Amino acid sequence: MNLDTYKVSKTIKLADSTTKEVIENAEKKLNKLSKKLSKLQDTMYAEGKYSVLICLQGMDTSGKDSLIREVFKEFNARGVEVHSFKVPTELELKHDFLWRHYLALPAKGKVGVFNRTHYENVLVTRVHPNYIFGENIPSVKSIDDLNDVFYHDRMDRINAFENHLIKNGMIVLKFFLNLSKEEQKNRLLRRLNIPAKNWKFSAGDLKERKLWDKYQFCYEDLLNRTSKEKAPWFVIPADDKPTARYILAKILLQELKKYNFKEPTLSPKLQAQVADFKNELNNE
Amino acid sequence: MNLDTYKVSKTIKLADSTTKEVIENAEKKLNKLSKKLSKLQDTMYAEGKYSVLICLQGMDTSGKDSLIREVFKEFNARGVEVHSFKVPTELELKHDFLWRHYLALPAKGKVGVFNRTHYENVLVTRVHPNYIFGENIPSVKSIDDLNDVFYHDRMDRINAFENHLIKNGMIVLKFFLNLSKEEQKNRLLRRLNIPAKNWKFSAGDLKERKLWDKYQFCYEDLLNRTSKEKAPWFVIPADDKPTARYILAKILLQELKKYNFKEPTLSPKLQAQVADFKNELNNE
Repeated sequence: MNLDTYKVSKTIKLADSTTKEVIENAEKKLNKLSKKLSKLQDTMYAEGKYSVLICLQGMDTSGKDSLIREVFKEFNARGVEVHSFKVPTELELKHDFLWRHYLALPAKGKVGVFNRTHYENVLVTRVHPNYIFGENIPSVKSIDDLNDVFYHDRMDRINAFENHLIKNGMIVLKFFLNLSKEEQKNRLLRRLNIPAKNWKFSAGDLKERKLWDKYQFCYEDLLNRTSKEKAPWFVIPADDKPTARYILAKILLQELKKYNFKEPTLSPKLQAQVADFKNELNNE
Repeated sequence: MNLDTYKVSKTIKLADSTTKEVIENAEKKLNKLSKKLSKLQDTMYAEGKYSVLICLQGMDTSGKDSLIREVFKEFNARGVEVHSFKVPTELELKHDFLWRHYLALPAKGKVGVFNRTHYENVLVTRVHPNYIFGENIPSVKSIDDLNDVFYHDRMDRINAFENHLIKNGMIVLKFFLNLSKEEQKNRLLRRLNIPAKNWKFSAGDLKERKLWDKYQFCYEDLLNRTSKEKAPWFVIPADDKPTARYILAKILLQELKKYNFKEPTLSPKLQAQVADFKNELNNE
């Protein structure tokens, strides 16, 4: 299984990327993996040099929430922080678009999961440019200012932001859950058919679904412009939920292993005193 | 009075920049100015499009605290927020070096004053490179990694950070209070001679004073590399406190006027109803 095939390392077309991969026994395989991941996280926490930022994007019903539940189920709660970003608040709109994400960044030793991310600033606000007016940006005088140049400049600034974080020891990994339009239909129908799932449905979901092609265009553009060697995007086939979770976990494990996390060792000075400490305790 | 002479717009040498300018009646002149500044701030607050970030740097005793007290004395407390950055806390050290500054950024409509700033990350940590070890950065393995390339890369990232803020409507103005070594000696002696001022003195002040030349070198380098058209540094002669305050206020006024802040107007729809609203109130 070559995980690099999921990585956006040259220009991709979403229309050519499968949404339908199915891996046998993905659930069982994930169980094993998630224990390994949790162990890696413990070591990273002890070392205190790195942090991990996992960015999760995907259309409505692509399975972001349940993926988070399953992939991180073996984690010590101390080690992982999930931030779900919704419509920005009034205070958040009074700051630059990265501000609320900056506040939520994981400290060294921790894994931060952004459930929807700073990329919404070049996604939902590109599909609905009028949202940008809420940000009261001096240079934006009319809808004509919200052109490709505007969104591409934001992407450049997102790249600069991530580059800065990486230089401080943050590991940035970005995942797009690639869902087909048919499978979204199935999942939305399920939300409507099963009373216990009704609460997950909103009329807005159907409005956004009508803009499917626009979203795909914007996703494709951002994936191609912001996937970097040190902050790569991975496109994960998401029509089968267990498969998507397993692939993501497997990529996560592969990427984190590259950093050789190590528990800190005692300083040579303390090391030399270990026998004395033991004596002191035994003779008290 | 040509205020642009204080602006760093081409390579400067601190040794050639005067610390000794004295302006007659600077205190009285500042009183008038600070009222004008406060009025501008009120309009900016109402407009809600811009914010202002004032960065203040200078050697110990250069007069940063009293300058803030005097320049902003006419401000509505609602409109100005001062953040004095000291030694980073344990939590702050677990984040990238811009994190604590990001959290403290002023919202639209507000003036934020950074009393010591993100530039300490290429200043005190360059004079004392061993401080960087507290940040636990993976790429920093020994003191040899803390070379010019390291600090210049940080400056590039600071430039990218400020560029991002400016694009969102932040006005970034940076002031270096340029004090002479002799005048610092006088001010430190005053802290020791006057019992009520003793608390301001710490033994560390004399240690840092011994590193004067190193600080001057680092200041000169950062001024030359991070003064930008849209985020300029101003070098303010600081041996005479009233003069320094007046010059800074005058520059602030000149720079803020460029943005033509305007109170928002009623929407045409509401405007058309003004007579009805008045009637409703008068007839209740």
